[in-house]
Amino acid sequence: MTDHLSLMNMTTSREWHLVRRPVGTPSPDDVELVEVHVQSPARGQVVVSNVAMSVEPYMWGRMTGAGPTTPYELGAPMAGHAVGTIVESAHPELTEGTLVLHEAGWRERAVLPADRVRVLDQPDLPSTVWLAALGTTGFTAYVGLLHVAACRPGDTVFVSAAAGAVGSTVAQIAKAMGCTVVGSAGSAAKVAFLLETLGIDAALDYHDSSLRTSLADALERAGVDGIDVYFDNVGGEHLEAAIRRMRDFGRIALCGAISTYGDRPAAGPRNLLTAIWRRLQLTGFIIYDHEARRPEFERVMGGWLRGGRVRSVETVRTGGIGQAFPALLGLLGGADLGKTVVELDAHGV
Amino acid sequence: MTDHLSLMNMTTSREWHLVRRPVGTPSPDDVELVEVHVQSPARGQVVVSNVAMSVEPYMWGRMTGAGPTTPYELGAPMAGHAVGTIVESAHPELTEGTLVLHEAGWRERAVLPADRVRVLDQPDLPSTVWLAALGTTGFTAYVGLLHVAACRPGDTVFVSAAAGAVGSTVAQIAKAMGCTVVGSAGSAAKVAFLLETLGIDAALDYHDSSLRTSLADALERAGVDGIDVYFDNVGGEHLEAAIRRMRDFGRIALCGAISTYGDRPAAGPRNLLTAIWRRLQLTGFIIYDHEARRPEFERVMGGWLRGGRVRSVETVRTGGIGQAFPALLGLLGGADLGKTVVELDAHGV
Repeated sequence: MTDHLSLMNMTTSREWHLVRRPVGTPSPDDVELVEVHVQSPARGQVVVSNVAMSVEPYMWGRMTGAGPTTPYELGAPMAGHAVGTIVESAHPELTEGTLVLHEAGWRERAVLPADRVRVLDQPDLPSTVWLAALGTTGFTAYVGLLHVAACRPGDTVFVSAAAGAVGSTVAQIAKAMGCTVVGSAGSAAKVAFLLETLGIDAALDYHDSSLRTSLADALERAGVDGIDVYFDNVGGEHLEAAIRRMRDFGRIALCGAISTYGDRPAAGPRNLLTAIWRRLQLTGFIIYDHEARRPEFERVMGGWLRGGRVRSVETVRTGGIGQAFPALLGLLGGADLGKTVVELDAHGV
Repeated sequence: MTDHLSLMNMTTSREWHLVRRPVGTPSPDDVELVEVHVQSPARGQVVVSNVAMSVEPYMWGRMTGAGPTTPYELGAPMAGHAVGTIVESAHPELTEGTLVLHEAGWRERAVLPADRVRVLDQPDLPSTVWLAALGTTGFTAYVGLLHVAACRPGDTVFVSAAAGAVGSTVAQIAKAMGCTVVGSAGSAAKVAFLLETLGIDAALDYHDSSLRTSLADALERAGVDGIDVYFDNVGGEHLEAAIRRMRDFGRIALCGAISTYGDRPAAGPRNLLTAIWRRLQLTGFIIYDHEARRPEFERVMGGWLRGGRVRSVETVRTGGIGQAFPALLGLLGGADLGKTVVELDAHGV
């Protein structure tokens, strides 16, 4: 009887499997788009059809197996945040049509136990914000800026990769708090976006070769006479330049160090003596340690999004699941503005 | 009448003047030992005859004018902590024979207003401890270890320059608290001192060329499977090695970076990505920000000294004021164990 039912409801899902650990930047040969059968849900389970999935730099680390996060298994689907609709339910409280957040991204459909899905409780907001400003991305910005770097209204805040997923949220939260905000980004277009769309106070293009000789001088020319908070998404040369421009008792949140990821050589700041003279504090953090603050964050960020104080900056790739791996390559190449999201065909809804 | 009195009481004092700012390591041509007349005290002043004076690495920075401290003036006496006896008083509450702590070191005698001398209030302790374990040196160790690095009993503590003035106090406080303590020092004799006299758990000689290829490996061979607190007196390679061996949520107090002082090239830690993965906190501090804690420190440290939990490690140079500048050169050369103190002839007592 169960077999008969399973057969009746059998549908397929395409999902990305890791088949080889990348050396350096991932290549298409490291992954495979596999079609699998989706079983009916057992008691307490639901079938989710994904609407959108998140693509993030840390996934590179899970592919290579380096880094603090659990490596992806070979021959198994990759994972990541996704928003989907329940299309079949064997749980009394999770009805079909309900929008949920979960971690079974990189696939079209997933069978999940009820405790691995989260019903989205701010239905007036677009669902993709849960992958961007209202998701772990925005939560990282919020915790790093407010709780790790102890940012206060009136501070001068410098954020690197300011047009990126986390950076663009940091920049907007800081502006919303009444800070002076300076951002760096990797192209003239991103700099224009930061100044004109996000309205930050100064921005510099670190791919501009005239600046690269001294980012610290560039900060000074941008009118930055001193930094209270540096939100570091980059590491390397950026960190050294920021240290050179920090004010006494400045705080640095070490969030990412994309300049030192993968096979690229890492450069350390040569001026940590300044960290003593200026009594700086550098703090590395990983967002998963701060889950207890997530309800507070969602309440506050929900209000900022509704009030237009913060916008969820997203680069949305359409074209379905086949676009997910190209989207990761695009993200690692530095092409995207804000959070990279892949829109999936919500088939079966 | 005043002139007559002054003449009657005229005595002399020898004092070290800075006559030229050193480039790199100080040389004898940068200073001069000058004989001056000491005036009688005006109302509210006292004449102090120094018993002992402190010699410290930061004085190099005051000589060159680099660094966070006020540069010494050219053609004027250098300054630093000293202990002396009041030999003449024009203040009702400061009687002759009273032992005081003050900042008019580098000279035999000084005329000081009452508010620039501090009466030593733990007379059962030897007076030189006020320049070492019970002075700013010990205070730096105490604040850095307990309040900046938030050291807790049971932590594994790594301290560099562990046979030095601050380091030897850090090592002993950590042992007194029930920590596992690992120290690095610049000679086999210092390592022996750390293990045999101070009784720390492991020590390594960073001038041993077999270790210098990888201090991080040396830490591992010394049985250090993870560091909770690193008290950094050195910077550079030490900091990088410590970061490599830190445990999750480890704390690093950035106190000194003698490897990056002066004209020596500074090397930055290339592994700050680890600071993110391990959620490390690096905090630079300057002791002068923490004066409010000094009474607490003196009470606690006084108890440790009396109880024999901490000893004041001092290298005492005898021979009077003429030995002060050679003592500074010796200190910068890395020769001394613990705090360098110059014993002055307490003439006139």
